[in-house]
Amino acid sequence: MTEPPLTEEDALARALAEAEAAARRGEVPVGAALLDAGGGLLAADGNRIRELRDPTAHAEMLVLRAGAARLGNERLIGTRLFVTLEPCAMCAGAISLARVARLVYGATDPKGGGVAHGARVFDQPTCHHRPEVARGGAAEAAAAGALLKAFFAARR
Amino acid sequence: MTEPPLTEEDALARALAEAEAAARRGEVPVGAALLDAGGGLLAADGNRIRELRDPTAHAEMLVLRAGAARLGNERLIGTRLFVTLEPCAMCAGAISLARVARLVYGATDPKGGGVAHGARVFDQPTCHHRPEVARGGAAEAAAAGALLKAFFAARR
Repeated sequence: MTEPPLTEEDALARALAEAEAAARRGEVPVGAALLDAGGGLLAADGNRIRELRDPTAHAEMLVLRAGAARLGNERLIGTRLFVTLEPCAMCAGAISLARVARLVYGATDPKGGGVAHGARVFDQPTCHHRPEVARGGAAEAAAAGALLKAFFAARR
Repeated sequence: MTEPPLTEEDALARALAEAEAAARRGEVPVGAALLDAGGGLLAADGNRIRELRDPTAHAEMLVLRAGAARLGNERLIGTRLFVTLEPCAMCAGAISLARVARLVYGATDPKGGGVAHGARVFDQPTCHHRPEVARGGAAEAAAAGALLKAFFAARR
């Protein structure tokens, strides 16, 4: 079944809603949404590390796996991934392996990011597929960052 | 239930057997074995990317997820991971997130590795847990490399 196309703003808003839902579950509030080549929503989810007792259950990994299952193909050709936070090295590696065409993220993550910081996975000669990378709007980035900040402040 | 302890040589041999089984399934032949803090086998598996239609189904990811499920804990404190090939950036990121204590791998992977090549995930300031890293014996590395070479030669 084909879903109606979403704009990139809609997709980032959906990712943010998933991050808010993750916070309500006691998870680090990061959310992701994956659009298929036609712009329809393939999958959306937030972190579920604690719930699933799975160290790999970042929002990005969950939507990549769900999207591949839904398409019946381990290569997500033409898809676009929207995430509230800069992906870590694990997720950036998975995004490359899955052949995602375009990555849009909200807040930057100097402490744990693997796209614009640290491992810079897509910039390495060992990276065999590099998605287009773009930042979401300033408002979305601020909202995603504020959610994370509030979450960690409440835990101190 | 506690499994009897394995030596590191036994664990690497088990990983190699999983790589051979992966080749028979038509998967890129990489295998992994995870030992718990007492040295018992927690999980062992090989690549299942095609079988599961899952771009993240590398041997390392499967055993980390299975080990966490078995322990009921997303942190694999004190565990040791044995892999036939140098892990990629995705798997290295997952190994760090899972708090694996020690990583031993066989063949080196200059084209796709993320430990001693490319992203060098554990060497980044964004990496918050670095496992001990060691290479397996020369014979195990040669056997793991030969398996990969034969697999790719047969596909040409």
